[in-house]
Amino acid sequence: MIKIGIVGGTGYTGVELLRILATHPQAQLTAITSRKEDGVPVAQMYPSLRGRVDLAFSSPDKANLNECDVVFFATPHGVAMAQAPELLANGVKVIDLAADFRMQDVAQFEKWYGMEHSCKDLLPEAVYGLPELNRDKIKNARLIGNPGCYPTTMQLGFAPLLKAGVIDAGNLIADCKSGVSGAGRKAEIGILFSETSDSFKAYGVAGHRHTPETVEQLQRLTKDKVELLFTPHLVPMIRGMHSTLYAQLKQEISQEISNEALQAMFEEAYKDEAFVDVMPFGSHPETRSTRASNMLRIALHRPGNGKHVVILVVQDNLVKGASGQAVQCMNIMFGLDESTGLLHVPVNP
Amino acid sequence: MIKIGIVGGTGYTGVELLRILATHPQAQLTAITSRKEDGVPVAQMYPSLRGRVDLAFSSPDKANLNECDVVFFATPHGVAMAQAPELLANGVKVIDLAADFRMQDVAQFEKWYGMEHSCKDLLPEAVYGLPELNRDKIKNARLIGNPGCYPTTMQLGFAPLLKAGVIDAGNLIADCKSGVSGAGRKAEIGILFSETSDSFKAYGVAGHRHTPETVEQLQRLTKDKVELLFTPHLVPMIRGMHSTLYAQLKQEISQEISNEALQAMFEEAYKDEAFVDVMPFGSHPETRSTRASNMLRIALHRPGNGKHVVILVVQDNLVKGASGQAVQCMNIMFGLDESTGLLHVPVNP
Amino acid sequence: MIKIGIVGGTGYTGVELLRILATHPQAQLTAITSRKEDGVPVAQMYPSLRGRVDLAFSSPDKANLNECDVVFFATPHGVAMAQAPELLANGVKVIDLAADFRMQDVAQFEKWYGMEHSCKDLLPEAVYGLPELNRDKIKNARLIGNPGCYPTTMQLGFAPLLKAGVIDAGNLIADCKSGVSGAGRKAEIGILFSETSDSFKAYGVAGHRHTPETVEQLQRLTKDKVELLFTPHLVPMIRGMHSTLYAQLKQEISQEISNEALQAMFEEAYKDEAFVDVMPFGSHPETRSTRASNMLRIALHRPGNGKHVVILVVQDNLVKGASGQAVQCMNIMFGLDESTGLLHVPVNP
Amino acid sequence: MIKIGIVGGTGYTGVELLRILATHPQAQLTAITSRKEDGVPVAQMYPSLRGRVDLAFSSPDKANLNECDVVFFATPHGVAMAQAPELLANGVKVIDLAADFRMQDVAQFEKWYGMEHSCKDLLPEAVYGLPELNRDKIKNARLIGNPGCYPTTMQLGFAPLLKAGVIDAGNLIADCKSGVSGAGRKAEIGILFSETSDSFKAYGVAGHRHTPETVEQLQRLTKDKVELLFTPHLVPMIRGMHSTLYAQLKQEISQEISNEALQAMFEEAYKDEAFVDVMPFGSHPETRSTRASNMLRIALHRPGNGKHVVILVVQDNLVKGASGQAVQCMNIMFGLDESTGLLHVPVNP
Repeated sequence: MIKIGIVGGTGYTGVELLRILATHPQAQLTAITSRKEDGVPVAQMYPSLRGRVDLAFSSPDKANLNECDVVFFATPHGVAMAQAPELLANGVKVIDLAADFRMQDVAQFEKWYGMEHSCKDLLPEAVYGLPELNRDKIKNARLIGNPGCYPTTMQLGFAPLLKAGVIDAGNLIADCKSGVSGAGRKAEIGILFSETSDSFKAYGVAGHRHTPETVEQLQRLTKDKVELLFTPHLVPMIRGMHSTLYAQLKQEISQEISNEALQAMFEEAYKDEAFVDVMPFGSHPETRSTRASNMLRIALHRPGNGKHVVILVVQDNLVKGASGQAVQCMNIMFGLDESTGLLHVPVNP
Repeated sequence: MIKIGIVGGTGYTGVELLRILATHPQAQLTAITSRKEDGVPVAQMYPSLRGRVDLAFSSPDKANLNECDVVFFATPHGVAMAQAPELLANGVKVIDLAADFRMQDVAQFEKWYGMEHSCKDLLPEAVYGLPELNRDKIKNARLIGNPGCYPTTMQLGFAPLLKAGVIDAGNLIADCKSGVSGAGRKAEIGILFSETSDSFKAYGVAGHRHTPETVEQLQRLTKDKVELLFTPHLVPMIRGMHSTLYAQLKQEISQEISNEALQAMFEEAYKDEAFVDVMPFGSHPETRSTRASNMLRIALHRPGNGKHVVILVVQDNLVKGASGQAVQCMNIMFGLDESTGLLHVPVNP
Repeated sequence: MIKIGIVGGTGYTGVELLRILATHPQAQLTAITSRKEDGVPVAQMYPSLRGRVDLAFSSPDKANLNECDVVFFATPHGVAMAQAPELLANGVKVIDLAADFRMQDVAQFEKWYGMEHSCKDLLPEAVYGLPELNRDKIKNARLIGNPGCYPTTMQLGFAPLLKAGVIDAGNLIADCKSGVSGAGRKAEIGILFSETSDSFKAYGVAGHRHTPETVEQLQRLTKDKVELLFTPHLVPMIRGMHSTLYAQLKQEISQEISNEALQAMFEEAYKDEAFVDVMPFGSHPETRSTRASNMLRIALHRPGNGKHVVILVVQDNLVKGASGQAVQCMNIMFGLDESTGLLHVPVNP
Repeated sequence: MIKIGIVGGTGYTGVELLRILATHPQAQLTAITSRKEDGVPVAQMYPSLRGRVDLAFSSPDKANLNECDVVFFATPHGVAMAQAPELLANGVKVIDLAADFRMQDVAQFEKWYGMEHSCKDLLPEAVYGLPELNRDKIKNARLIGNPGCYPTTMQLGFAPLLKAGVIDAGNLIADCKSGVSGAGRKAEIGILFSETSDSFKAYGVAGHRHTPETVEQLQRLTKDKVELLFTPHLVPMIRGMHSTLYAQLKQEISQEISNEALQAMFEEAYKDEAFVDVMPFGSHPETRSTRASNMLRIALHRPGNGKHVVILVVQDNLVKGASGQAVQCMNIMFGLDESTGLLHVPVNP
């Protein structure tokens, strides 16, 4: 059994970790910290966990995280980098669901997250936790920067085409849509029911933190300079993310490449993946087809004049886009079958 | 392994059976019938099942349901009673999720369902599949009438008080609210998104089929004459059912009985139940605390002058209110641990 | 033109007043106060008002409310009673959308609202602003306590039967359901989209502030002692309120009174009302049939054994349940046609 | 007063016409046809119209549409072209909300709508009813093809840049999102609440009817060849449309043009328009800021490397995207002030 600690278990990625780990056959939930909720049973805050999670929140001082095998940080940015060094020194592995260890480029981190990086020396060994593109490094990692939700869809959607060199890396457009849970569990007017229901909007169009993270990773896949135009939107639904990706085929390639060849690139890339489903060419995946599961689905289109490939990617932002992916990394790090505890069938309807 | 057939797998209770059975360790999905979708892979109709259910729908004629150990009917009323005799004769157990075998009172059935009952001779052995009140009979049953969604909440909510004889059986009021999936997967204007979203209404106030079913069962618990006023409402949510039950305490009892004593009746009644959660007195259960799980939660209140007990009951109408309950019955009928394959943690948020 | 001031225009009842008054032919919006948003154009906070409301918020100190003809308080409880005396002394009429002047029973007010009433001497002249039951007093009022949203539906639903003396006043049950906007525009986790969407719950079952307000008013209609069991619920919709009212017919009356006679009581009671629609007996009104309008609709049912009348009442909680009703009062107070500026056709779908 | 007929008043654009015309000071509703609902009062089908619209549906044969001044067709494609000739011959003006008279290119029409165009001889005089780009022709038109909902946003969003010649007309991308009411009021499983709520998807990515209509119109604004990649999506909301438009600046222009200059193009283009609101540069318009109103709002962004302009456009798909626009055309055709009867303040929240 893997002894597991969770720092910051009161947010949505925290409670989603609990939902997943409560039925994970190798997980032993050992400590969940929350300064504010010290002593409160987790199931009192989240009645959905009544009878399934017996733990109470404990103040960070009291929780003996050093006795865990792995600690997940489901905290705001900046917390993991303060606590990771001591944990690692005590032989505890660390998986951060926030951004502290996602980007190697410190300047970009500090620019976009508005804080100094207090733990730069650990960055070189931090591993970006996207198994489908980085599995080998995850195996031996002590410290994981778990990908952002949007970046997961953008990378898995663009990767096969970028690697194959068939698209213009300098002109990527990602029009992405997220459910409201992606904004977290915070007392903010902007995410009230009455402010977001029955409406739709873009946000952060001028620039979003997930752009530099995604570009840094995509750049590893090609020698061409990657330029990404990323537009996030807020959808009146709780869970779910839909990314509509526009990739312009290189001119010479556009005239000769078949749809079948494009489809084959994706099927080949993901043929051994448990959590990436390449749907038949021309499909329209719905976010609900991944609801409450670790699946990510991809479908290709090539409309109109054939110059663009449109890649549709859906996932549950709280699972494959956050907590499920973190558990997937844990499974890899501890030598378990990668899908252990993650085979929830999507909830539909 | 239990060989399982599903008749009518294209509706919501059908696909929910598939979701549950796909991870049930003793279930072997053997046949799913649909005349209209003959030959179509189930996962093509329900992409949420891609990679998890390999079966294709088959026409009822071709499906060899007689080789199954149990057949679930997730069909409109009237189908199961036509096919059950042959299946039973071949040693196949039958669990009907529709109303054909729920009521012993044929006249009531025919009045409310507008069809003749073609299989009256099987009614005496049909068992009402509410495990918490009828477990012993389910154990040895060949033929189960799986309860309606509303009746499940009304019975489990009123039962402890009725059995204890502390309330006026002749003045039960049930104000119940259901998610739209309860109306099924039918091409009807009344359940379109644009007709039901951002709105709320009652329906069937003059009379609803679930009243006679519930009264027939509640009457078994008391010698007093049961009279039930049941008002169903439609909530703009997919899954979930919330029943607000009003029970008037008998006058002499009202003055002496304590809240603790009332609470104790419920805790005692359900202390060994895996799927009934009696919450602390005064709780306000949310339907989402049961989402996509087989849990039903109950909380008691005694407002104002103390003459009434208000019982709040929540469940997922498609799970404990339908397909989960059916699998719970199957587990009992086949001697499995009752919670086998049913321990999904509710999905929250 | 009526010069109008609004204190606290940043909440939902405030912006709804603005929506209504922006097209009211006799309204001259003169001042809107908000300490926090001083100087900010209203339309910057609410882009829906761009080009339609030119005013900016001003700090309460700067706003010359004393020059207005009427001031609406769309504030939390306690604000109006602090400012009303000075305004009234300056000849300004006051309409409070909060609870300060709704109840004559100070002890009840102080118990339920947890604050001392600082303006008891004005209470005797305060008029309860429910036009259909209190029109004559409103005509000459200087100070209006605008009814709560739930109480509006409960009073208009029970009133005809209580006045006629046909129901048991001591056993009224009101099972009410409100859209989330009723909880206001506050940064609270409990009303986030991800906490309330796709779910349903009751709240305040042990006791709610709207009970004593409603009982105080209903008691005026009958000599029998009124006892009310009121259960509020939260519906995942923005606007809308649906009250399901259960009235027990007096035993002797139950056996002889016809449905037609009951229906006639309602039709007679509201035959001259512009904003109360008595639908055909047995109708199922939907909240959306009143969306963004000042209409309230009522339908009667008499299910089962005929001992109860079930009254269904729907309204838009922000219009007839709050700001529309306040403008209706204003129209009466200033001698205008009562429906001036209030004839919005409900938005459907 | 203008005598008005509506053919096909049972769908969403029909009932929205009724909502608007019921308070239009110059409109006299004269006839509403529906073969299926012959004799049924409109307000029985749409209780939101109780007390506001007295008309009953009448069978097309009985309705004397020839006595109207104008007839709106809120019907499926193909109906208007069958009936328009006779009406026009009788001096009745025609506004078709379907596609029959939107496109001059008959081949494109027949390809995308799958029917022969039975009224080609009227096409030359048919006027495309987008007032902001075509006002002069609308003034004298007898026959209007009212624009599609998506095309309205795409044209008003791209037009100023295309006219100015600063963008690459051959590489327009429109990622558009619509509320479910855009799919109409039809008994189809795909638009049930339980199929569309809490989910998001693209549809018609391979090709959508609104592409050729939009290209035909955009092509009139520029000599460069217009190529448009249009991707529609379905949002779980009733009303509202959000188009995210990506325009690539011509390379030489990209380096020198300022954001202010781009913004000025839009402000200049729409400075006299009552229903187009150019928001401050960098705004994020929400669809709800136009809910139930005829407003369309536009905001510009220029993220990242500055090579693209991102234009955000929102409207209510049933108003500016359909019925409101049709009434706007009617106002122009009959010499009324263009905003007569159309100044509804958007409903928010």
